[in-house]
Amino acid sequence: MERGKFISVEGIEGVGKSTNIEVLVRRIEAAGYEVLTTHEPGGTPYAKDIRDILLNRSDEPVPEIAELLLMFAARSFNVNNAIVPALEAGTWVVCDRFTDSSRAYQGGGRGIPLEIIDSIAGWVHGDAWPDLTILLDAPVEIGMARAGTRSEPDRIEQERHDFFQRVRECYLQIAAREPGRVVVIDTTRPLGEVRADIAALVDRLTGNV
Amino acid sequence: MERGKFISVEGIEGVGKSTNIEVLVRRIEAAGYEVLTTHEPGGTPYAKDIRDILLNRSDEPVPEIAELLLMFAARSFNVNNAIVPALEAGTWVVCDRFTDSSRAYQGGGRGIPLEIIDSIAGWVHGDAWPDLTILLDAPVEIGMARAGTRSEPDRIEQERHDFFQRVRECYLQIAAREPGRVVVIDTTRPLGEVRADIAALVDRLTGNV
Repeated sequence: MERGKFISVEGIEGVGKSTNIEVLVRRIEAAGYEVLTTHEPGGTPYAKDIRDILLNRSDEPVPEIAELLLMFAARSFNVNNAIVPALEAGTWVVCDRFTDSSRAYQGGGRGIPLEIIDSIAGWVHGDAWPDLTILLDAPVEIGMARAGTRSEPDRIEQERHDFFQRVRECYLQIAAREPGRVVVIDTTRPLGEVRADIAALVDRLTGNV
Repeated sequence: MERGKFISVEGIEGVGKSTNIEVLVRRIEAAGYEVLTTHEPGGTPYAKDIRDILLNRSDEPVPEIAELLLMFAARSFNVNNAIVPALEAGTWVVCDRFTDSSRAYQGGGRGIPLEIIDSIAGWVHGDAWPDLTILLDAPVEIGMARAGTRSEPDRIEQERHDFFQRVRECYLQIAAREPGRVVVIDTTRPLGEVRADIAALVDRLTGNV
């Protein structure tokens, strides 16, 4: 049994993650592979319980380190109980957000040192990094305008513009540091061009180039 | 306003934590101080939500690192939102379990390296260690026999005898390494003697020696 491929999709709010994840999953399935689509925080019953705590609106202040530890606790459940078993069964996994989100949001956005985040990442998932990370990118103004048309934002989505600016910059720095894993796709272009880029990435992974 | 004193009470199941915490709190109150009694995991609404996840019985496996991260996430809420504000208001804090429990249970018991646990402790509470930690100690057989008479055990309390043996040994090693903070009290002795020891510890902290 050939091990499945692990793909994460990253980006700030409003860059078109949902639409492009659909495009991605359809292309993988068209190539003949099973796909597990998951998201973080979430993906298993325990991880979902942790997600509910993280997205809860409450008067109690949330220490930044608590948010980070909860994110990685949820990730530990998702990696051990959903992602790795699927990959070992030959299923491909498409994950909406992974450790790069912790780096970008809790690191770039909130200022937690990346060394702390990467230490915890090492304890939680070791070398289980995605085979491919698709970073969907657009200027913060465009992303926020798109996200603003959706339903009521949760606690994290309420954060301000300069926060998202720091998050976007951190994402782009990660992509610059790890070009072999992270591919940046500019989603301000016509949808047809974006879809063609995603299709080409899948073809490269399946060997159908 | 003089800062309150922070006291944690540690020990394996069945060593008499509840009874002796009552003795401890009454002695502090008798000396004229306000006391906040709290416990871990717990102490704030968010920490209580995390406790509910940790003590939940479920078929989903719990990765050891996830348990550790959840414990420290709960601790972060308790330290920031309950313990430190109380101490700064001059209230004494008695905490049923603190970071030594993470060291003893997740470290000694489950085998997570103490360097990992102490790194996270540093990020979560820095130097906010208790002024005094009372380690209530008894052989595992005595503790388990006492604990077995209580209501239905939760997931963690179901662990086996050799697990508690490792936990106890780790506690005693911590006490040997940090004799200035951790005091061991043998709870197999008559209750009157144990109470006298606790009273003497409080008198030393209040200056009424």
